Amino acid sequence: MSQDIFDEREYERRLTRTKERLREERLDAIVVADPANMNYLAGYDGWSFYVHQAVVVTPDRDEPVWVGREMDANGARATTWLSEESIRSYSDDHVQSPYDLHPMDYVAGVLEELDVADGRIGLEMDASYFTAKSYTRLQENLPEAEFEDTTLLVNWVRITKSEQELEYMREAARISENAMQAGLDVIEEGVPEYEAAAAIYDQLITGTEEYGGDYPSIVPLMPSGDHTGTPHLTWTDRPFRDGDPVIIELSGCRHRYHSPLARTTFVGDPPEEIEHTAEVVVEGLEAALDVAEPGVTCEAVEKAWRETIAQYDIEKEDRIGYSMGLGYPPDWGEHTASLRPGDETVLEEDMTFHMIPGIWTDDFGVEISETFHVTGSGAETLAEFPRELFTT
Amino acid sequence: MSQDIFDEREYERRLTRTKERLREERLDAIVVADPANMNYLAGYDGWSFYVHQAVVVTPDRDEPVWVGREMDANGARATTWLSEESIRSYSDDHVQSPYDLHPMDYVAGVLEELDVADGRIGLEMDASYFTAKSYTRLQENLPEAEFEDTTLLVNWVRITKSEQELEYMREAARISENAMQAGLDVIEEGVPEYEAAAAIYDQLITGTEEYGGDYPSIVPLMPSGDHTGTPHLTWTDRPFRDGDPVIIELSGCRHRYHSPLARTTFVGDPPEEIEHTAEVVVEGLEAALDVAEPGVTCEAVEKAWRETIAQYDIEKEDRIGYSMGLGYPPDWGEHTASLRPGDETVLEEDMTFHMIPGIWTDDFGVEISETFHVTGSGAETLAEFPRELFTT
Repeated sequence: MSQDIFDEREYERRLTRTKERLREERLDAIVVADPANMNYLAGYDGWSFYVHQAVVVTPDRDEPVWVGREMDANGARATTWLSEESIRSYSDDHVQSPYDLHPMDYVAGVLEELDVADGRIGLEMDASYFTAKSYTRLQENLPEAEFEDTTLLVNWVRITKSEQELEYMREAARISENAMQAGLDVIEEGVPEYEAAAAIYDQLITGTEEYGGDYPSIVPLMPSGDHTGTPHLTWTDRPFRDGDPVIIELSGCRHRYHSPLARTTFVGDPPEEIEHTAEVVVEGLEAALDVAEPGVTCEAVEKAWRETIAQYDIEKEDRIGYSMGLGYPPDWGEHTASLRPGDETVLEEDMTFHMIPGIWTDDFGVEISETFHVTGSGAETLAEFPRELFTT
Repeated sequence: MSQDIFDEREYERRLTRTKERLREERLDAIVVADPANMNYLAGYDGWSFYVHQAVVVTPDRDEPVWVGREMDANGARATTWLSEESIRSYSDDHVQSPYDLHPMDYVAGVLEELDVADGRIGLEMDASYFTAKSYTRLQENLPEAEFEDTTLLVNWVRITKSEQELEYMREAARISENAMQAGLDVIEEGVPEYEAAAAIYDQLITGTEEYGGDYPSIVPLMPSGDHTGTPHLTWTDRPFRDGDPVIIELSGCRHRYHSPLARTTFVGDPPEEIEHTAEVVVEGLEAALDVAEPGVTCEAVEKAWRETIAQYDIEKEDRIGYSMGLGYPPDWGEHTASLRPGDETVLEEDMTFHMIPGIWTDDFGVEISETFHVTGSGAETLAEFPRELFTT
């Protein structure tokens, strides 16, 4: 099944680059627990990350080893490119176990079989689903191992995208456009927030006429009214009111690849102040997009934004964007390069970022975002959607 | 805002029971990182669990302390019952930081201020989002502290539900019924899987005529055809085919409370074997529901299922259910009591379980589930939905 999504050579290229990093770091193995990294290397795709699972890579073995719950091994057979001997699974008494069994006990056994029990083993120490207990159980089971923190090792390999990955992100962008339009169309005074969420979801999953949509790694976020200053609250039963600014942040998803998009709308007639702020955000966003090209640093892109808004006496030194693409809940970000002061990562061709600058006053916030692809000569936005303040 | 959902006395009762547990375990503090436990104690509700955050409880302080990202402090002000001095936030340079700053450095500072830096501190060592790095950073910052694993301490407090919690679960059940019907209505030969997912999502978010729906902690799962043996794969562009069994597992959600429901349908005329299997599943499910009442153990409930299906020469010794209610992605389960051999947890009034038994052959699987509430005298299912094999 994974072969329908990427051909096996693409997985081989990803694995080759990952193994090069292992050799550079003199690692005998890495245990990859981030579901996006597991998908990237093995193709595995399932909503099973609420139990412990991993993909193990060694510098010499041709294939990585998928390790998961017995119940999910068929899912690994269906979605990965791996042969049967590379799919290993633990029995159900390891799951939320009252028997003092832990899935990482089984993973430790796999590492022993791979003959790296006394080696240097990389762990994604700060990945969402790699718990403190996963770490201590590996320590207890493998007292001779030397553990290294390799949290972002595979994430950094993911930062430049293949043509096929870009194609899925462009497909996700089509879905994002449809979903944004649906959300803007439904928002008006008296409509409850959940109805806007439902209209957006309908487009996110129905997708386009050619293909459907996958679930996004983050639900649609729609802070409105007083809550435009609380970016991560989700929808409620509250009806939109005249005078509410509403920020919509969403992403279509295709084969787990995203293309996020944010726009701001206003219920009723917007005051001049908010219209002006939206114009400043657009000018700053476009200035930053203009400087983005191979060879430029992330901090230089942010600086173009900051200098533009400074002309209007607005100061803001937050991160305005981040590298992204493949993802699972809770996040579509890759956690590597950020568009912020101090980040000296140099843009390379085929990197992809979500640039999401915003300006907040005491009364309202305006965010307008674009997902862009670093081409040979500049930045190409994936979605085509008017950059302006919308009104109902 | 949290006061609209639960009154402050309900939070006080939850906190009192949690503090009792702290005293029993001679703990000076617990650091609660599970988003469901954070919501349970503080009311906090936001899609911000992709960054590190916590609620800290000490036996003597009246309120817990919420700790999160600066950007999310307004969300804490909007959704928790806490006063300003109990809301603490770290600056954005702690987020995916290139500066060797970690949010747990800040949490350690809060623990110092609470005067427990040299105390016994409970950590949810195996909770999703409490990473290995979170643990090592707390260790480094607080060398005098004695850390204990309190992974399920708050989860066990959550196991019996208040009348208001049950009310939200009943509201979620109404949404589950609507969403299940919508999924069954749309599935037929030639319809792509994503269209069924879209129809289900529409009902999950639109909810009922009286109220909307929240996002569920797990997306709708619809393994079909060969994939009924791969329970955690999500929808694709594949059209349903004549002869496909399709299992739908979903949950409505209301203020983060769930009421999951699973049913099985068949595209076309089902063979006698699958009809018979569905009858056995229903008989076993009902036998297990019949014995569930206060005073009975979890393993006794499972045994009633197992003995019923044994009459048809079917053996299966998996877990058939689990305690659940409040939840965030990736899971709506509470990870405490399970309906499985060896689990001697005694059912008490106002516990709630999702009972999801299934039988798989080489060719197909049938699952039919119910969420039930342990009443004073038995088990009351929250949803009302026919227990049978559906056909298109």
